[in-house]
Amino acid sequence: MREKMLAAEKITALRWQGGRLYLLDQRLLPLQTVWQAYENAADVAQAIQAMCVRGAPAIGIAAAFAVVLAIKAQQNNENWRTAIEPDLALLAASRPTAVNLFWALQQMHNALASVTTAAQALERAEQAAQAILYADREANLTMAQYGLDIIQRGCDAPQELLTHCNTGALATGGFGTALGVIRAAHQAGLVSLVHADETRPWLQGSRLTAYELSEEKIPVSLNADSAAAHLMREGAITWVIVGADRITANGDVANKIGTYQLAVLARYHDVKFMVVAPSSTIDMQLANGGLIPIEQRDASELLDVAGQRFATPVDAFNPVFDVTPAALIDVIVTEKGVVEQPNAEKMQHLMHAAKLH
Amino acid sequence: MREKMLAAEKITALRWQGGRLYLLDQRLLPLQTVWQAYENAADVAQAIQAMCVRGAPAIGIAAAFAVVLAIKAQQNNENWRTAIEPDLALLAASRPTAVNLFWALQQMHNALASVTTAAQALERAEQAAQAILYADREANLTMAQYGLDIIQRGCDAPQELLTHCNTGALATGGFGTALGVIRAAHQAGLVSLVHADETRPWLQGSRLTAYELSEEKIPVSLNADSAAAHLMREGAITWVIVGADRITANGDVANKIGTYQLAVLARYHDVKFMVVAPSSTIDMQLANGGLIPIEQRDASELLDVAGQRFATPVDAFNPVFDVTPAALIDVIVTEKGVVEQPNAEKMQHLMHAAKLH
Repeated sequence: MREKMLAAEKITALRWQGGRLYLLDQRLLPLQTVWQAYENAADVAQAIQAMCVRGAPAIGIAAAFAVVLAIKAQQNNENWRTAIEPDLALLAASRPTAVNLFWALQQMHNALASVTTAAQALERAEQAAQAILYADREANLTMAQYGLDIIQRGCDAPQELLTHCNTGALATGGFGTALGVIRAAHQAGLVSLVHADETRPWLQGSRLTAYELSEEKIPVSLNADSAAAHLMREGAITWVIVGADRITANGDVANKIGTYQLAVLARYHDVKFMVVAPSSTIDMQLANGGLIPIEQRDASELLDVAGQRFATPVDAFNPVFDVTPAALIDVIVTEKGVVEQPNAEKMQHLMHAAKLH
Repeated sequence: MREKMLAAEKITALRWQGGRLYLLDQRLLPLQTVWQAYENAADVAQAIQAMCVRGAPAIGIAAAFAVVLAIKAQQNNENWRTAIEPDLALLAASRPTAVNLFWALQQMHNALASVTTAAQALERAEQAAQAILYADREANLTMAQYGLDIIQRGCDAPQELLTHCNTGALATGGFGTALGVIRAAHQAGLVSLVHADETRPWLQGSRLTAYELSEEKIPVSLNADSAAAHLMREGAITWVIVGADRITANGDVANKIGTYQLAVLARYHDVKFMVVAPSSTIDMQLANGGLIPIEQRDASELLDVAGQRFATPVDAFNPVFDVTPAALIDVIVTEKGVVEQPNAEKMQHLMHAAKLH
């Protein structure tokens, strides 16, 4: 599975090259493939806020490299540690819901704890950011195997899967979380069709998931988000597989708006529901999903498409995420292991297992 | 209520004037207000197919006037009755799911049964089409009162309602079905906010419902279709109120894709679910919703917005309607009366009541 995934890799969201961070502008996909180069942390924070880069793991990785850029800007400054604070604050404020962002900034902070000079800091930061990227890719390969095992256990024949938003190579350091599992399942001959919710308002499903899957010749069918129940009732879907932006200590999951809806519908139609996310997504500091800050974005995201106004200009309610209670989740897959019927005790056990991220 | 509704009327979808049918092109709303004049039935059939006019009752009314145009084209033809058959076939084939279309054609057929000359036929057809339009408006006013009574019985304070697609003046001869009830409830001081699903892929919510409600200063908030469960969970919504394209003998309801999803979610969140439709929507010839032909439309409706391609060109599943089982419906409101917890026996009773449409 690992070798096949590596061989089939076609798409990446970001790369670090020549001391610059390059981000594939995901707002323009699939119509245009434009790589933007970033030389300072404030611009990366802006790119995160504007969703040039998106997906919880990819945001974390981009933020890690942005810390490298912040240090680079202060490489001749003795007080580099204080001088980068404003940049770190900008990065931390760029998206409120995904916890990988804060996790990555904490990893970078830890890596820099014992260094003194800016030159040392720059070297250590670059190593640490590369390590975060590498670990994310490895975590995705591990999760793909774990998720594949679970699907295979339930049904060893080709089946139809439903996914929401984009959780693929474009959302991570490579391969994807939920989409990584779907890729592995396809390679194992277990996927007859992937149903992709178009995922309003940003249309990550139509623009990004359809793009990734069609690039790899994995059969995909788009549907309006509101057709999911009808699809489940028609009967062929075995699993809904999604990612996560933050998972709390009891196993509640914040993910793209519409995820909670799918979980309710999956339970009603006796379809299994899988969440795939690296352990960096798990926030043991929050007891439950009611405490997760939910980002609200501008109404214009519902009133315009591709910059074109089509709607009547009225108020719009635009929460980017919702919270799925642990009770509606059949399994959470992480690189540390899987948690079936998640609850606080099992999550605690997972996070204290020997194999650390 | 009736007088207030009549006084507040601002929008109509169609008008018959000078022997022509005028349709407000709903594909262009709210950006442009363009009335198209129709002088022959084939063009009206095309307008129905292309969704220039949409909404089950409005389609029925437009088809009725198209029959007048068909006869007019044969007014010097002794064999007018045979000569209009191709036009009638075109009209019947324009949309497969909404039953009001077939009902209206049957009404016109009945009206013409006893006439002989083309001149008589033209006069009778025009009267019959006007009667269908008038009856639809009256039915909507009656249903608005019935629906209002039910809402008031449940809660006599301002509350939040959720609706899907457009079921207003633009979908009917005037006032609307579900949106007519919402209008009446607002006039009675029972509405603090109307949540409107944007309703992909045609965005009838963003384009049409938001337009109608904002024209009448009824507070409205748009949301992505996939945010409905989150909204229900947040707790303020008391009723989901929707229209119908076809209701079968057991009370199953075909309506815009996404309706079934809302019904499942409403039941899960203990939110009441109301369907509002004239009795011309009820098809006693079909035993249950599994027998309703579900129109599938082109994948491009999911890949483009306002004529602009934004998605990866993959396959798309685009059923226009879904079926909500009677068991998930709290009440069906018709102009003949209301049916709570619908089933075959109650529907039979309703349709055989003395007050005929």
